[in-house]
Amino acid sequence: MALYVHKYGGTSVGSVERIKHVAENVIKARQRGEEVIVVVSAMSGETNRLVALAKEAQATPDVREMDVLLSTGEQVMIALLAMALKERGCQACSYTGGQVSIVTDSAHTKARILDIDTQRIRGDLDQGKVVVVAGFQGVSEAGDITTLGRGGSDTTAVALAAALKADECLIFTDVDGVYTTDPRVEPKARRLDRITFEEMLEMASLGSKVLQIRSVEFAGKYNVPLRVLSSFKEGAGTLISYEEDTMEKPLISGIAFNRDEAKLTVLGVPDRPGVASRILGPVADANIEVDMIVQNVAEDGTTNFTFTVNRSEFNKALSILQDTCAELGAREVRGDDSIVKVSIVGVGMRSHAGIASNMFDVLAREGINIQMISTSEIKISVVLHEKYLELAVRSLHDAFDLDQPVVSV
Amino acid sequence: MALYVHKYGGTSVGSVERIKHVAENVIKARQRGEEVIVVVSAMSGETNRLVALAKEAQATPDVREMDVLLSTGEQVMIALLAMALKERGCQACSYTGGQVSIVTDSAHTKARILDIDTQRIRGDLDQGKVVVVAGFQGVSEAGDITTLGRGGSDTTAVALAAALKADECLIFTDVDGVYTTDPRVEPKARRLDRITFEEMLEMASLGSKVLQIRSVEFAGKYNVPLRVLSSFKEGAGTLISYEEDTMEKPLISGIAFNRDEAKLTVLGVPDRPGVASRILGPVADANIEVDMIVQNVAEDGTTNFTFTVNRSEFNKALSILQDTCAELGAREVRGDDSIVKVSIVGVGMRSHAGIASNMFDVLAREGINIQMISTSEIKISVVLHEKYLELAVRSLHDAFDLDQPVVSV
Repeated sequence: MALYVHKYGGTSVGSVERIKHVAENVIKARQRGEEVIVVVSAMSGETNRLVALAKEAQATPDVREMDVLLSTGEQVMIALLAMALKERGCQACSYTGGQVSIVTDSAHTKARILDIDTQRIRGDLDQGKVVVVAGFQGVSEAGDITTLGRGGSDTTAVALAAALKADECLIFTDVDGVYTTDPRVEPKARRLDRITFEEMLEMASLGSKVLQIRSVEFAGKYNVPLRVLSSFKEGAGTLISYEEDTMEKPLISGIAFNRDEAKLTVLGVPDRPGVASRILGPVADANIEVDMIVQNVAEDGTTNFTFTVNRSEFNKALSILQDTCAELGAREVRGDDSIVKVSIVGVGMRSHAGIASNMFDVLAREGINIQMISTSEIKISVVLHEKYLELAVRSLHDAFDLDQPVVSV
Repeated sequence: MALYVHKYGGTSVGSVERIKHVAENVIKARQRGEEVIVVVSAMSGETNRLVALAKEAQATPDVREMDVLLSTGEQVMIALLAMALKERGCQACSYTGGQVSIVTDSAHTKARILDIDTQRIRGDLDQGKVVVVAGFQGVSEAGDITTLGRGGSDTTAVALAAALKADECLIFTDVDGVYTTDPRVEPKARRLDRITFEEMLEMASLGSKVLQIRSVEFAGKYNVPLRVLSSFKEGAGTLISYEEDTMEKPLISGIAFNRDEAKLTVLGVPDRPGVASRILGPVADANIEVDMIVQNVAEDGTTNFTFTVNRSEFNKALSILQDTCAELGAREVRGDDSIVKVSIVGVGMRSHAGIASNMFDVLAREGINIQMISTSEIKISVVLHEKYLELAVRSLHDAFDLDQPVVSV
């Protein structure tokens, strides 16, 4: 019998009405003869409510106690969903992370799953029950409640799908799949039927918020086919899996972008070994995450060093760099927080030369100045002034024929 | 080192402000050199909120899932209280019922405690930590979450006190102790320093709502001294323990009353064996709880049979009785739902004759007609018209000198 893990996020269970809708969705799957494990998140808003209570109780809430607190959000939902299923005559049983032994390390608020005991779940499935499991939470080897951090419910779903060898892990969300780019920027954006794990990772890390990177990595590692689809409307969504010979193979799968970027440049850095680490070390020490890094050799024995950070960290990074600049004897620090990053992503680019020059041509024809370039095997990113974002996305979407449906094989 | 179990109810933890106050109370106890285990209830109102959600999800919520849902209320509180303690530099650790193995039977929503594993709690206490335990909940031998029903947090506290051989179990509530009677009826009502378990049981079952009967029974069975005291103001409260030779021994400890009574009488019942069970059987089958039962033999070979029920069950009981009356060939059924029960309670009455006649004298002097009388070893209850309630309570309070402090030995 085919086994599917369903995962429903906070907006999908945002009210009892919506929970009933989820129950009906699950029952349809049962009627198709599928075995179903359902992973649910806390009701949207609940986690924020609990965090606010915690901060009232303790200025910097203790992480062990935070996990005891936060895990209640999902626990409420599993009970309500199991009730809604039973109300409709569907056998169901709910479990907390601890009850089905989702064993994690003891890194509270960001624990990693070590092991899952599938015996109890398998037993319930064999009895024809729908098994409802609280997402986002586990139990440490010492018996303490742990939580998995942001996107943890996706991780729970993927881990259960891997442990129980599910056919697919279905991530129900408020969008109906992964798009070639953001439809709010390019109305011609098209839902992809399939995308590879690697492409999805690039899309996710480049600012496409459909899935958490960690769950995509996890699904890729355990080869769990992931499907993103809407809780609210019918449709096959987008399947994320490994590249197959029979798979549709466009050169480019999608265009991702990120508006939350800011750029910092140190000019006239004496060009000697160790400069990069002396510039980035203090930034990393301040817990500022660095995204793109580009270094160009200049002609006068000095070099220019540029990197991007999240816009919210821009001022902090700038002031750190000014200190570093003085220590290094560099000429000047410049910052720019009105930039964006636009990237084209596609496994097809591996075997095709000329994609990069095609991209740069398109942008040049529109008069868009490229400030930075960075590439990986399946992605090319450029940094632009923010005013060009929409124009760049639309002209690239058009140039790479992303609005043309690709026939699935 | 002296070990105390503190229990704080829903109103004592009704806001984060109040939780902080509880934390300070616990810290004072630590500063006195006491070891402390704290049992907390859900925030007042939370259980009702969750029950309403459950009823939206399922017309008659599944009891197993109800326990998964309801247990979150206490889980939120243990985390917040542990945080508030840590914020004040007090080492603390929170546990759900399952985490400290409060093992119960599997009677969901009204489970009974079978066993408690004290090892983890004892270990934490030895390390100088305050142990915060979720009240009202446990775990079945099959690993399911269970709850203990109304007053369950008191039961948790008593069970922990018994298992860990605590010196006392302190029940913090919104009143500062057990009174000789309800101060809203008799302003001269006085807080008792001590009362015996048996007296407290009679007081509790007669309508004094300070403690749940079950937790008093439980404390009595395991000989755990219980102390009722206020969360909001200082004071020694009332100690509930077994009678000791050195204990203050007034004849009467208090006056309890219950306004929620209704009386039903079957007149002219043929006087033969088995009549009582034929009358009460159908009432019990309808799940109506019967309180006082009085049967008088009449002279014409028939008997009159009277009993009281909760007022909310009056109409249901009346209609059942009318059927029974016809079957038995009894003359008539009469009902009265404007009665109250007033009782005097005291272990002293065991060794003193004349208490009953004294009570009846007092009521007669006030012109109060007694409709029913029922007695036990340490209690005399009378049923009166409800209009006499306040007068009866005040005159009895006065006649038995309950406003006079008794010197504690």
